[in-house]
Amino acid sequence: MKSFLHVSDIGPLATALEEARQVKATPLAWRHLGEGKTVVLVFFNNSLRTRLSSQKAAYNLGLQPIVLNVGADSWKLETELGVVMDGDRSEHLREAVPVIGSYCDLIGVRSFAGLNDRDFDYAETILRQFIDWSGRPVISLESATVHPCQAFADLITIDEYWTRKTGLRLGSGRRPKVVLSWAPHPRALPQAVPNSFAEWMNAAPVDLVITHPEGYELDPQFVQGARVEYDQMKAFEGADFVYAKNWSCPGVSCPQAYGQVLNYDRSWTVDERQMAVTDGAYFLHCLPVRRNVVVSDAVLDSPKSIVIPEAANRVVSAQTVMKRILEDIKNQ
Amino acid sequence: MKSFLHVSDIGPLATALEEARQVKATPLAWRHLGEGKTVVLVFFNNSLRTRLSSQKAAYNLGLQPIVLNVGADSWKLETELGVVMDGDRSEHLREAVPVIGSYCDLIGVRSFAGLNDRDFDYAETILRQFIDWSGRPVISLESATVHPCQAFADLITIDEYWTRKTGLRLGSGRRPKVVLSWAPHPRALPQAVPNSFAEWMNAAPVDLVITHPEGYELDPQFVQGARVEYDQMKAFEGADFVYAKNWSCPGVSCPQAYGQVLNYDRSWTVDERQMAVTDGAYFLHCLPVRRNVVVSDAVLDSPKSIVIPEAANRVVSAQTVMKRILEDIKNQ
Amino acid sequence: MKSFLHVSDIGPLATALEEARQVKATPLAWRHLGEGKTVVLVFFNNSLRTRLSSQKAAYNLGLQPIVLNVGADSWKLETELGVVMDGDRSEHLREAVPVIGSYCDLIGVRSFAGLNDRDFDYAETILRQFIDWSGRPVISLESATVHPCQAFADLITIDEYWTRKTGLRLGSGRRPKVVLSWAPHPRALPQAVPNSFAEWMNAAPVDLVITHPEGYELDPQFVQGARVEYDQMKAFEGADFVYAKNWSCPGVSCPQAYGQVLNYDRSWTVDERQMAVTDGAYFLHCLPVRRNVVVSDAVLDSPKSIVIPEAANRVVSAQTVMKRILEDIKNQ
Repeated sequence: MKSFLHVSDIGPLATALEEARQVKATPLAWRHLGEGKTVVLVFFNNSLRTRLSSQKAAYNLGLQPIVLNVGADSWKLETELGVVMDGDRSEHLREAVPVIGSYCDLIGVRSFAGLNDRDFDYAETILRQFIDWSGRPVISLESATVHPCQAFADLITIDEYWTRKTGLRLGSGRRPKVVLSWAPHPRALPQAVPNSFAEWMNAAPVDLVITHPEGYELDPQFVQGARVEYDQMKAFEGADFVYAKNWSCPGVSCPQAYGQVLNYDRSWTVDERQMAVTDGAYFLHCLPVRRNVVVSDAVLDSPKSIVIPEAANRVVSAQTVMKRILEDIKNQ
Repeated sequence: MKSFLHVSDIGPLATALEEARQVKATPLAWRHLGEGKTVVLVFFNNSLRTRLSSQKAAYNLGLQPIVLNVGADSWKLETELGVVMDGDRSEHLREAVPVIGSYCDLIGVRSFAGLNDRDFDYAETILRQFIDWSGRPVISLESATVHPCQAFADLITIDEYWTRKTGLRLGSGRRPKVVLSWAPHPRALPQAVPNSFAEWMNAAPVDLVITHPEGYELDPQFVQGARVEYDQMKAFEGADFVYAKNWSCPGVSCPQAYGQVLNYDRSWTVDERQMAVTDGAYFLHCLPVRRNVVVSDAVLDSPKSIVIPEAANRVVSAQTVMKRILEDIKNQ
Repeated sequence: MKSFLHVSDIGPLATALEEARQVKATPLAWRHLGEGKTVVLVFFNNSLRTRLSSQKAAYNLGLQPIVLNVGADSWKLETELGVVMDGDRSEHLREAVPVIGSYCDLIGVRSFAGLNDRDFDYAETILRQFIDWSGRPVISLESATVHPCQAFADLITIDEYWTRKTGLRLGSGRRPKVVLSWAPHPRALPQAVPNSFAEWMNAAPVDLVITHPEGYELDPQFVQGARVEYDQMKAFEGADFVYAKNWSCPGVSCPQAYGQVLNYDRSWTVDERQMAVTDGAYFLHCLPVRRNVVVSDAVLDSPKSIVIPEAANRVVSAQTVMKRILEDIKNQ
């Protein structure tokens, strides 16, 4: 695995899920794999779950994590080519990336979408520089358009709770109905989480329905054949899993609105009203979540809310991915 | 030990002191205990000694520390329940705490008193959320009202220097006279350090005298039966140990003055004048200390100043507490 | 080695280079040396290479690194003696340094020149306090006047590429011509890198030429007998290695100009024009580098640019120095 951005990077999902189950059952069984090796975790943006779960996953594998907070710890980094660097950016990614690569065996990068330039973001410009120039495998820890460690953890969680609900493993019986619902938020947020969630659910044996107000259409490469339903209540009917998340305008039909907040309609806040029409659906959210804006206290604090086990599975997804990469390195 | 806030959490003090002596003598003797385990150290505030000594203590036990600087590294955290989170706080402790708990085996939390709301502070509101919601043992690394790792290190230090002075172990002969003295400071500081120092000295075989200007009375739960003396010179007479520290108004008799600086009387600065009436007392301070405000250079740089060995014992107290917790986990 | 500031601290260079080659060949061969030991890395300033390479070097030796960002993580530190500390600095280095020393086995310190007070900077006032008061070996990770880990990595790199060019080891045939060239920069930078580079090259079997505009004369203790050439093109003639770097006025002939930017002459930007008169010289720079200000894209992206392998050797130099210190500790 040269990079981990898309569901296709992990190979057959059933195999990946089985491996994740083993990692969760015996997290310390591969401690020799990372011995003498380091992962640099580069943060251009804040993080809680990703920061902690990536370090925990590394330790479980005997791998030493080194955290780099760009800007706070090091220098402001220039990302454009051909410029005269006489401003406030002291170092170019063209140097920083291969240097970082020379100090470690794999790299994780958190770099949010800037939401100003759709082409720049959707080309994954920053992450691509890490992939192209570091000489190391690169894991997206949420980059401009994807958050694969989150989506993998989401899938692991859905698999676990589907078994709890039906006694069956995902893929071995009827397909659960999974609803991805837009929700309001006071600030403009990237589309990385819904993009990856849609991509992974499309690849998994589930029926995905996406619901959002008009104008919030996700990029077709992630929506693929999924049903899009503009009536939130209709979308929730009979759902087994509800995944709430805000995102800003993806700019698909109207590129100049890219990254904007098109509406703040609080009727979309996920509450008991919507949950009542589901089939006793479990509630998921990637966190951090704005209480009583994205979702009501009543839903978030209900027994059907599985956001904490979902977050806990971030160690499992990160460790499974790092394990694969370390095995690849060993077999080279 | 589910949490470490009070002297009662560590059990019999003589046993704890003996264990601390062993930890200091052979710090690497329990390296297997922490193997494959992690401690998350959560800092809502700055720290030097606590930050370094907690990490060193963890490493000595084979335990992997993960440091989280709230605000800088992660998100601003909401601490009140029932609010509509449409402001600048992206995440609620209600989620953040169990998530952190899911990534580690024990948690240390530094969270200073806000000094605005006495009830909020004295209820240890922040730390309680960690204790109630994390599912993990929680160590106060100075919380709103207590700093038990410091007080334990203070006791270890007093024990060592009492033996040096008298050839006896603490508890096996006459009781040393220990003076806790208020001292001036340009800013309003929490009461956590004097609270815990008083609590631990009251539990130890020493005679505690507390001296401070009127209005600075500490909370009765910490003062207990200790003698309070408003005349600093009288308090210092015949002392074996002097512990200087500033604190702001505890608001005991006058709640509306809670957290305020009531006076900045530089005659309370600990100097050779006061030390001259002691029985050649050793000088202690938790650090950081304002030179020539809290204490004069002459006293701090004298051979009787033991602030550096006192700080060094922060590794010993932290390691003894972590060791106990790891042994509890093992025996569960 | 009580401290690592100067080339003389590492002993005979041929021995040090041979040791560095072994460290590079088998980086994990000394993992037992650091077992149960910690290094505290104190950063008063930003860092990318030093931060990562020091941690990697420590891990390779089984040594646990603890990073301390002064100001962000801990308290603002007072550095002057005898002051009444009633301002914004909560702690004095007089306490902080021995406390840090008590939590570790060796210390690395990054503390840039303030460029305001030449005497303060050139006395290495901050680093000296660490050396005098910590009780531990201290490594300069770029202090006010020197950057020895960088200069040692530079020498390792020159040795490697000289062998690549001539088939000979440094010292076993003709001496390469090494040019240290000043280059323009929008901000005032310290002289630590050129000082150490000059010092180390003077001690190595190379012919050093230093070139810069008038007024930028480096301190004689570092220049020693090296040729100084004010005509950049003349200096570059027949060079085997070109080392570009900006520095501010060292204040040698004109102390009141210390730390100032005397000129911003872009004709000094290293470009193909200057490289054309060399003997196919390799290009080095310590990084971070301002593209098209210090050096053109054409030179930096050419096959002769070895800035990335040079940065990679920062692990080798740091590890060789830490290894020496750990061996000293073991043999005490």
